[in-house]
Amino acid sequence: MGKGRLEAFSDGVLAVAITIMVLELKVPHDASVAALLQLWPVFLSYVLSFIYIGIYWNNHHHMLHATHHVSGGVLWANLHLLFWLSLIPFTTGWMGENHFASLPTALYGGVLLMAAISYWMLQQRIVAANGAQSVLARAIGTDWKGKLSPLAYLTAIPLAFVNPWFSCALYAAVAVIWLVPDRRIERRLASEG
Amino acid sequence: MGKGRLEAFSDGVLAVAITIMVLELKVPHDASVAALLQLWPVFLSYVLSFIYIGIYWNNHHHMLHATHHVSGGVLWANLHLLFWLSLIPFTTGWMGENHFASLPTALYGGVLLMAAISYWMLQQRIVAANGAQSVLARAIGTDWKGKLSPLAYLTAIPLAFVNPWFSCALYAAVAVIWLVPDRRIERRLASEG
Amino acid sequence: MGKGRLEAFSDGVLAVAITIMVLELKVPHDASVAALLQLWPVFLSYVLSFIYIGIYWNNHHHMLHATHHVSGGVLWANLHLLFWLSLIPFTTGWMGENHFASLPTALYGGVLLMAAISYWMLQQRIVAANGAQSVLARAIGTDWKGKLSPLAYLTAIPLAFVNPWFSCALYAAVAVIWLVPDRRIERRLASEG
Amino acid sequence: MGKGRLEAFSDGVLAVAITIMVLELKVPHDASVAALLQLWPVFLSYVLSFIYIGIYWNNHHHMLHATHHVSGGVLWANLHLLFWLSLIPFTTGWMGENHFASLPTALYGGVLLMAAISYWMLQQRIVAANGAQSVLARAIGTDWKGKLSPLAYLTAIPLAFVNPWFSCALYAAVAVIWLVPDRRIERRLASEG
Repeated sequence: MGKGRLEAFSDGVLAVAITIMVLELKVPHDASVAALLQLWPVFLSYVLSFIYIGIYWNNHHHMLHATHHVSGGVLWANLHLLFWLSLIPFTTGWMGENHFASLPTALYGGVLLMAAISYWMLQQRIVAANGAQSVLARAIGTDWKGKLSPLAYLTAIPLAFVNPWFSCALYAAVAVIWLVPDRRIERRLASEG
Repeated sequence: MGKGRLEAFSDGVLAVAITIMVLELKVPHDASVAALLQLWPVFLSYVLSFIYIGIYWNNHHHMLHATHHVSGGVLWANLHLLFWLSLIPFTTGWMGENHFASLPTALYGGVLLMAAISYWMLQQRIVAANGAQSVLARAIGTDWKGKLSPLAYLTAIPLAFVNPWFSCALYAAVAVIWLVPDRRIERRLASEG
Repeated sequence: MGKGRLEAFSDGVLAVAITIMVLELKVPHDASVAALLQLWPVFLSYVLSFIYIGIYWNNHHHMLHATHHVSGGVLWANLHLLFWLSLIPFTTGWMGENHFASLPTALYGGVLLMAAISYWMLQQRIVAANGAQSVLARAIGTDWKGKLSPLAYLTAIPLAFVNPWFSCALYAAVAVIWLVPDRRIERRLASEG
Repeated sequence: MGKGRLEAFSDGVLAVAITIMVLELKVPHDASVAALLQLWPVFLSYVLSFIYIGIYWNNHHHMLHATHHVSGGVLWANLHLLFWLSLIPFTTGWMGENHFASLPTALYGGVLLMAAISYWMLQQRIVAANGAQSVLARAIGTDWKGKLSPLAYLTAIPLAFVNPWFSCALYAAVAVIWLVPDRRIERRLASEG
């Protein structure tokens, strides 16, 4: 089974998801500064989600790069991940449209949580298909980021009903720790090249 | 004739179709639980259609993987399949928006039926272009899933005017039997590798 | 210069164009037969445009398949073609929304005319980059379809102000003669293997 | 690290961005000449932005073609560029919708400025990853276009509050100087074959 189409389809879905999000940034009918400023919550949520989808694309790229065998189970685990990522434009729009109100901010975290879980499931599937001694398996190692992120989301979701800005701070913090790309795999690949 | 662009174009259309469906999930203007709950029929139809397009992508992936020759007829049979799949966002939206009313639920099945027929036509064309002794031809074998699915849709369409939930149960049942990927081809390829 | 990305980008634009056209098929808010029937002009124009974009994709696929050298001029000629094709969702929507009224039907033909001209320009550029003795140059030969199509559009545009259905019949007739794929190139390639 | 997926993902985002812009060209509900003419500012801004995204795709194509090594930093610099380009459909729509009013025209230039800066940053990253003696580094040379463009945008932004048409003339002028493809790289590649 080739991984080429898996990558192509995932790239397609992520490219569309990241780009249609901008449609939530509705074009104002007047040209005033006020009209533009009213868009700031939608814009802010757009930036956050753009970074998140970028992170997923980036990590997906690294993970697949270290993958040799793609089984039927991997295809489905990948579609499962894409399902949750495809909901990000919706939760982003709802959170922005309602100025980071509690419920939309909690739901945003819920979708991020499901995306993180499905990414972890995909990773497990790929490791299973490639063997515990594969470059990928050894590169992942302790995977502390992958373990910390769901904990952060699980904290952020109830926190949204106390103060949604705490939740947003947590979402942003998780994004920052992921922005450093997965050097583990890069390093492994380089050293074993 | 290379099959690379056929795959790339199909991936593109399916990736866009699967992702723009989420636009039917209109962002509510208030942040209440009630506003979110009102979206459940649209969400449910989104999940069903996401799985269906995922199944088509998955089977298309397997079928093309076992294909060596692509003729002009295959290109057109493929576009015919994409045409029916491109209507899924519309029928999904109509069914969800109207809370699984009879007519939209029947039409949803009608488009699934046409997609199944066009998939079967594409399969015939590919077998014709690759020979009855090809890996693909032998892998398809009796193709009981491909024969059962149209029968299920043909049953579900009139049933929608009795009770649309019966139809939905049938659509979901067909999805479940397809979720098991086409191991026939995978096995054949592995054993002949 | 590789032609891989030229194909990938063109596939992307055409896949998006063909799929977002379905968004013009607005989901009705009620589930009646009447609501569905009201959509027939939009649906009809969707079918016509789907076939046209399919034809362009198909011919583009054949033409690029026979291409070896891609110059800077080819990239721009290709973007020029994509520009006119990207307007098809708009003219399709306008024609369908207004039940094939004269002006939208004429404009639809105008965009088809520009697309045909830009396709011809792209073909000239590719032949120039690949030489008059290339497989492509010899395969194109007299190119009677490419010469007939603009004439048909030029006839259809004024005719729309007499009776738009005459124009639609011409658009459909051109589509039919193109539906036969460009066997010239296929045959040439096969015979020169 | 392969550059294949970087190109595929960028192609996807640019293809979607260039195509969804046409959705701002809202289909009029009547078929009159007046209804069509009212769309001219939106159409004009669409043409300008189509050319700009085409230029970015074209230059991106040339730059990546001359690239051999892709580092993690390059992936992020590329996403940064895509972020600004993904905002072009929004600024295009706002400028067109408000008939080239001062503020939207200035913001349009602001996004072009950020895109130019992020393109320059990406170029720096790629040169850093490929070495100062690489084909790319020598091909870029003095990069006068890359230096002139931000200056033109910086001039156009305040000018929009004097007369937005001066700004538009500057945007168009920059587009024209870029329409000549980056022959430097093409020539270098040819001569070093």
